[in-house]
Amino acid sequence: MLKQSPSLDLVFQALADPTRRAMVERMTKGPASVSDLARPFAMTLAAVMQHLKVLEESGLVRTQKEGRVRTCTIEPDVLRTAEDWIADRRTSWETKLDRLGALLDES
Amino acid sequence: MLKQSPSLDLVFQALADPTRRAMVERMTKGPASVSDLARPFAMTLAAVMQHLKVLEESGLVRTQKEGRVRTCTIEPDVLRTAEDWIADRRTSWETKLDRLGALLDES
Repeated sequence: MLKQSPSLDLVFQALADPTRRAMVERMTKGPASVSDLARPFAMTLAAVMQHLKVLEESGLVRTQKEGRVRTCTIEPDVLRTAEDWIADRRTSWETKLDRLGALLDES
Repeated sequence: MLKQSPSLDLVFQALADPTRRAMVERMTKGPASVSDLARPFAMTLAAVMQHLKVLEESGLVRTQKEGRVRTCTIEPDVLRTAEDWIADRRTSWETKLDRLGALLDES
């Protein structure tokens, strides 16, 4: 039976877009306002907000509004979850390969 | 200017689906035939082939046909590329946080 991981679906989907990855990259340098995030991109504020919404719904980004400024902060634990999923599969395969190598050496 | 990373787009897109992640998981246990991959899923072979195509186009999976059997193998380097992208951003943010903490301790 297939184990559902809806949050991983949303996290990988959020990371599958170069603009959203660039926004994540900017936020790793410190909390950013929506204007900060929008600055490098030749796109409307509405388009930037749409990307931000995808990031927020995935859990990768938390936003907080104080007065007229919305501040966006990265959630490292969610990055970690995605990183761990990939790392676990990669090491599982590498362990398998090592075992196959050892079997070949023995034979 | 936005740096395009089309391969990361395809890799994260490929990982954003639970069926494809389950197929990757299966392949970390060793090379698999298309029937092996299809077995746990209540879906048509055509649907499985479509998922496999997305995985292959992302570079995450390599397939090789010998006679009537197509064997599917994981590409750990491509998993590694996605893992490294996430890890680099996470550690960049954690370093930033440590610096902020140090500044607060000094003040």
